[in-house]
Amino acid sequence: VVHAGAMSGPGNLMDFLDEPFPDVGTYEDFHTIDWLREKSRDTDRHRKITSRSRESVWEFVKSLLDAWSGWAVMLLIGLLAGTLAGVIDLAVDWMTDLKEGVCLSAFWYSHEQCCWTSNETTFEDRDRCPQWQTWSELLVNRSEGASAYVLNYLMYILWALLFAFLAVSLVRVFAPYACGSGIPEIKTILSGFIIRGYLGKWTLLIKTVTLVLVVSSGLSLGKEGPLVHVACCCGNLFSGLFSKYSRNEGKRREVLSAAAAAGVSVAFGAPIGGVLFSLEEVSYYFPLKTLWRSFFAALVAAFTLRSINPFGNSRLVLFYVEYHTPWYMAELLPFILLGVFGGLWGALFIRGNIAWCRRRKTTRLGRYPVLEVLAVTAVTAVAAYPNPYTRRSTSELISELFNDCGALASSQLCDYVSDPNMTRPLDDIPDRPAGRGVYTAMWQLALALVFKVVITVFTFGMKIPSGLFIPSMAVGAMAGRMVGVGVEQLAYHHHDWIVFRNWCRPGADCVTPGLYAMVGAAACLGGVTRMTVSLVVIMFELTGGLEYIVPLMAAAVTSKWVADAFGKEGIYEAHIHLNGYPFLDVKDEFTHRTLATDVMRPRRGEPPLSVLTQDGMTVEDVEALIKDTDYNGFPVVVSRDSERLIGFAQRRELILAIKNARQRQDGVVSSSVTYFTEEPPELPANSPQPLKLRRIVNLSPFTVTDHTPMETVVDIFRKLGLRQCLVTRSGRLLGIITKKDVLRHMAQMANQDPESIMFN
Amino acid sequence: VVHAGAMSGPGNLMDFLDEPFPDVGTYEDFHTIDWLREKSRDTDRHRKITSRSRESVWEFVKSLLDAWSGWAVMLLIGLLAGTLAGVIDLAVDWMTDLKEGVCLSAFWYSHEQCCWTSNETTFEDRDRCPQWQTWSELLVNRSEGASAYVLNYLMYILWALLFAFLAVSLVRVFAPYACGSGIPEIKTILSGFIIRGYLGKWTLLIKTVTLVLVVSSGLSLGKEGPLVHVACCCGNLFSGLFSKYSRNEGKRREVLSAAAAAGVSVAFGAPIGGVLFSLEEVSYYFPLKTLWRSFFAALVAAFTLRSINPFGNSRLVLFYVEYHTPWYMAELLPFILLGVFGGLWGALFIRGNIAWCRRRKTTRLGRYPVLEVLAVTAVTAVAAYPNPYTRRSTSELISELFNDCGALASSQLCDYVSDPNMTRPLDDIPDRPAGRGVYTAMWQLALALVFKVVITVFTFGMKIPSGLFIPSMAVGAMAGRMVGVGVEQLAYHHHDWIVFRNWCRPGADCVTPGLYAMVGAAACLGGVTRMTVSLVVIMFELTGGLEYIVPLMAAAVTSKWVADAFGKEGIYEAHIHLNGYPFLDVKDEFTHRTLATDVMRPRRGEPPLSVLTQDGMTVEDVEALIKDTDYNGFPVVVSRDSERLIGFAQRRELILAIKNARQRQDGVVSSSVTYFTEEPPELPANSPQPLKLRRIVNLSPFTVTDHTPMETVVDIFRKLGLRQCLVTRSGRLLGIITKKDVLRHMAQMANQDPESIMFN
Repeated sequence: VVHAGAMSGPGNLMDFLDEPFPDVGTYEDFHTIDWLREKSRDTDRHRKITSRSRESVWEFVKSLLDAWSGWAVMLLIGLLAGTLAGVIDLAVDWMTDLKEGVCLSAFWYSHEQCCWTSNETTFEDRDRCPQWQTWSELLVNRSEGASAYVLNYLMYILWALLFAFLAVSLVRVFAPYACGSGIPEIKTILSGFIIRGYLGKWTLLIKTVTLVLVVSSGLSLGKEGPLVHVACCCGNLFSGLFSKYSRNEGKRREVLSAAAAAGVSVAFGAPIGGVLFSLEEVSYYFPLKTLWRSFFAALVAAFTLRSINPFGNSRLVLFYVEYHTPWYMAELLPFILLGVFGGLWGALFIRGNIAWCRRRKTTRLGRYPVLEVLAVTAVTAVAAYPNPYTRRSTSELISELFNDCGALASSQLCDYVSDPNMTRPLDDIPDRPAGRGVYTAMWQLALALVFKVVITVFTFGMKIPSGLFIPSMAVGAMAGRMVGVGVEQLAYHHHDWIVFRNWCRPGADCVTPGLYAMVGAAACLGGVTRMTVSLVVIMFELTGGLEYIVPLMAAAVTSKWVADAFGKEGIYEAHIHLNGYPFLDVKDEFTHRTLATDVMRPRRGEPPLSVLTQDGMTVEDVEALIKDTDYNGFPVVVSRDSERLIGFAQRRELILAIKNARQRQDGVVSSSVTYFTEEPPELPANSPQPLKLRRIVNLSPFTVTDHTPMETVVDIFRKLGLRQCLVTRSGRLLGIITKKDVLRHMAQMANQDPESIMFN
Repeated sequence: VVHAGAMSGPGNLMDFLDEPFPDVGTYEDFHTIDWLREKSRDTDRHRKITSRSRESVWEFVKSLLDAWSGWAVMLLIGLLAGTLAGVIDLAVDWMTDLKEGVCLSAFWYSHEQCCWTSNETTFEDRDRCPQWQTWSELLVNRSEGASAYVLNYLMYILWALLFAFLAVSLVRVFAPYACGSGIPEIKTILSGFIIRGYLGKWTLLIKTVTLVLVVSSGLSLGKEGPLVHVACCCGNLFSGLFSKYSRNEGKRREVLSAAAAAGVSVAFGAPIGGVLFSLEEVSYYFPLKTLWRSFFAALVAAFTLRSINPFGNSRLVLFYVEYHTPWYMAELLPFILLGVFGGLWGALFIRGNIAWCRRRKTTRLGRYPVLEVLAVTAVTAVAAYPNPYTRRSTSELISELFNDCGALASSQLCDYVSDPNMTRPLDDIPDRPAGRGVYTAMWQLALALVFKVVITVFTFGMKIPSGLFIPSMAVGAMAGRMVGVGVEQLAYHHHDWIVFRNWCRPGADCVTPGLYAMVGAAACLGGVTRMTVSLVVIMFELTGGLEYIVPLMAAAVTSKWVADAFGKEGIYEAHIHLNGYPFLDVKDEFTHRTLATDVMRPRRGEPPLSVLTQDGMTVEDVEALIKDTDYNGFPVVVSRDSERLIGFAQRRELILAIKNARQRQDGVVSSSVTYFTEEPPELPANSPQPLKLRRIVNLSPFTVTDHTPMETVVDIFRKLGLRQCLVTRSGRLLGIITKKDVLRHMAQMANQDPESIMFN
């Protein structure tokens, strides 16, 4: 019996073992990453750089560059996300107006830009100028009358169909991942799942272009959710520049969390709200360092957007509002009612949308995505054009609904009966009786509300980029404005009622309908997404004052409670479940009394666990085991009899190691013995070169005892980001629990179909 | 051989085992809690309530009440914390003025309140009214001249000494825990440590009273840090009302985290900043539910404070400012310089203060706390009175430094040379040359700065309540204002320089010295506490505009980087280390290459691990083991030979169980056999009643293998909040790692004295 390894010399053997072979430490598509391993790999890298940095000045500079690369990535993300958001805003502005007409002086001008350059513009007529021609003026030289109306109507529908067709075709041909809002998938990716290409360059490009197209087409969707996806694509793009992030899936996710914050920051102009959104809604692993960097990225993005200045008003925020009157305690009642409305709408929307999306997935409907998009676009365009509140872009609508009626407001919503004796101060106009314009507006708003409520259910989830923030806010804002006008008129006509007497004397400006719109928007958004703190902070950044936090909070909490009563899931979690992504929600509480032994595999009656023994298995045996099973890894035990655990070997690394050894290491053949111990086993003299595989074994696998409550196991999986966990009883290996097992068990306990969890 | 347990009947035996005996699940003073156990106890409780709620309407109502108790506690905390903050503000206002004089019309009026009621007040003379008399006017009827000055000076010193003496005596006699800022201890408590009485009723009462006294005495300290302690005391008080929180140390800490947010919220009038402060700086375990509740508590507290309205201006914030001009890119240079100053000062302050506190701990100095307080008070009062910027209260000083010079500003800092030809608009005054008052003010500010820098080092850490926010901000604000005035004058006199030419034409208002003061304050506060995001958000809430976030961030980041270069610890972590609290910081990164086997006990050469065997040990044996060792718990193994792990038994519960069994269970004597298995062991017929102890054994102890990197172990301890972790190798128990072992190891690796970790 001689030491077989001596043939090639221990030095030679060591070289092979210490040198990492390609692809080790990477993951397959649709698999879950091991957070602990990623973290420890990063620490190793960091240690190496630190020790090298003492060797030479150049290495020291390199270590500094490495330390600063995180900030550099954030800067780049902020710049690109801000730029893209600005470009999207400008393009949407132009293309939305293109549906109605064209600027003769320069066709690339939007309506507003076109009339800016006009000299004849007075304040009242700023929307009319000779350079801007509607399609009927341009084509048949008529601006009024039925035929002009019909022509404009048709052109509106045609442009909408063209935009929608272009968008859905681009998505289908070039980047199927560009569809949807992207937030459910980003949540899943951030929780440690691999979806290759989801954040790739093509997705970035196509999503940006198609986002402009779909928003311009007038469909009932927003650009805010997709902007988060776009920003995450930027994050992925720039993290590829630095090996620190590109080679470590854990570190990469820190960058993506920050990018999500930058996305919300540019979507609403709310950097703090963006960071909190990323923290509350999107992220999974959010260390303090990431908090700080997210904030930086969000700020850079917001300032880049501001310097592009797409809204032309130097404002950072999407809907800038300024109210002049405080709110009163009695108003809490309508605010809470708006919260109830928001919660009910949110719950119903989620149910309806999920039912429709499930139908799309399971029936023939899903086979004709282009047709579906065209049909919905046509319905939307046909129904939207006659109503001024649905014809314009949704964000303009929200902006108008949020705004208080100043003295110069020209909107129909501000058509109050004025007191001719009054001098006109700019702000602080007292409550007045509603004029005819307001009554007309109420009817139109009611119709628009019903239309939006229905069409959004069918729009969200089609194969085009589509966000939900703006439609939700629009629904809430319309409902809120109507309630607000109602309360205002009630207060005006009945200011002797006991509820109004204390705070609403005649001639006072006591009710601000715009505030109701804002509260309603917060309530509906809260009902759909179940955001709370980040929602209030975003709204707070929009208004820029602490004054209205209490109304917003009251509505957001009510809406969350009401919606939670109908189902705990927000729209993003619902879509995650619909698609069967392996997402272990931090918010779900697992309170059942099951133990690890109830969940682990093999169950009673199943064949025993496939294990590797620390020595004695040949390469052939291992290859057979790999071939016969599809597990992601195998526990390594001392022997089959004792089943005392040594470590855990990943399937992927086993395959790579054996393949590599067969190619590069002399004498490794099918009958070679593999061993996982420090020293090679004693073998007969004529046996082939053994294969040492200790390097790829994780010697510190995570174990729990069979008596561990599942509650604790779930907690461990969540907090440590495990892929699998081994179950032992008094030191003996009993079984294994994978993340998928945990998710199936949780689904089972919640009376859902455990087979819906599809990926590993 | 008969089944010995049959004597008393299995039913009887079961009853005893299932019924919890008193004190089980509580912890001893100065011990660490087990987060996982607390969590699983709460889930059990929750499960019980849920299953009972289906039984009757009353139980259902009870379950609803239980679900709402969290919100009720938050409401109560917010109300009490807001009220206390308001009362403290009012009392400090009055007592600070008492040092200078008294109101004749009503002695309980402060100077400002006294002159409010005066009819003769014009705007310029609002601080002078006949009702308010300085001590010299009152006692010798003279308001001017040397003797009046000396008399006022003496009265000022006497009052200061009286207040300080009262404060230190009250703290010493009634509540020694009321001293200091409290934040280091609260961080430690929130991380899962028990310090009984630290958040008790007496501490609350005495801290509130003495806080008023010390702030009024004019010492260089603030009330903001101690307000966090006061709010946490409120949290502890109200969590005692609900068994959900009072009986579960984990749940109680959720309430305390929220209370800390409420404390900062009322200290600065910044609810969002408070929540982020609690998240970034104070809390350890911060689930999303807590985030939301913290926000609620912080808002309630802020609104309670606002309705008390102690500042008399309906403002929520401590230092309300409004600036009228934007900042320019070129100004980033002085802002970054202020950041460097803040970082340097922060690092030096921490070094100096820790050195002084260590000296106090180790030398005779620490034996005379009263004398020390009186000496520092005397020095402070003597040096502060002659300088108008140190005589007044520090928060007034900061407020003046932050404010922009409006047209009506009467401060010496605003004594600019006016252009007589100019009409006076209220805002937007162009830059002007500085008058004599400004130059005098600069000298006085420089002296005040030096004085504050020196005296604060000696003040923080004395045996009185003392916060650090306000003195740090004052240092930064003074430095910032001086830099701001410097830049302003430079820009005025050299507006042809290339740096100024682009943005500072003559007659423009380009530099706002108040903004520099604010940036300096943020930089110094950042240097001392190393807060970043929460700091910027607090400052942002003070100014109420996103405009100034970039200057604030630039300064805060620079300051953190500069200060971190001199030592990673903020002042609170430094004090935690100084006191040897067992605090496992989430922010520290452990990057050394050690393994669990290097840290676990027993080490090589030490006696073997003290273990319990699952059967075969008598009550006497167990008691001997408890007596001979002082470990907090013992692993339970199958047998001493195999050392295969079964579970872990806590010392405290073993003692309680045996004591209880001896008293209540017949036949349990010293020679009774204890067993941890499901079934009693087979015993000779005449042996005494065996004692089943399975109930107190944790059957799912946490284990890692000896090869686990310490980095992972530290991560597990942090994230799961463990007290101890057992180390195994291929299923055999090797040793144990406690939280203290981890902390000692980390100290050792950081070249610190591992013996400084003092508690369990």
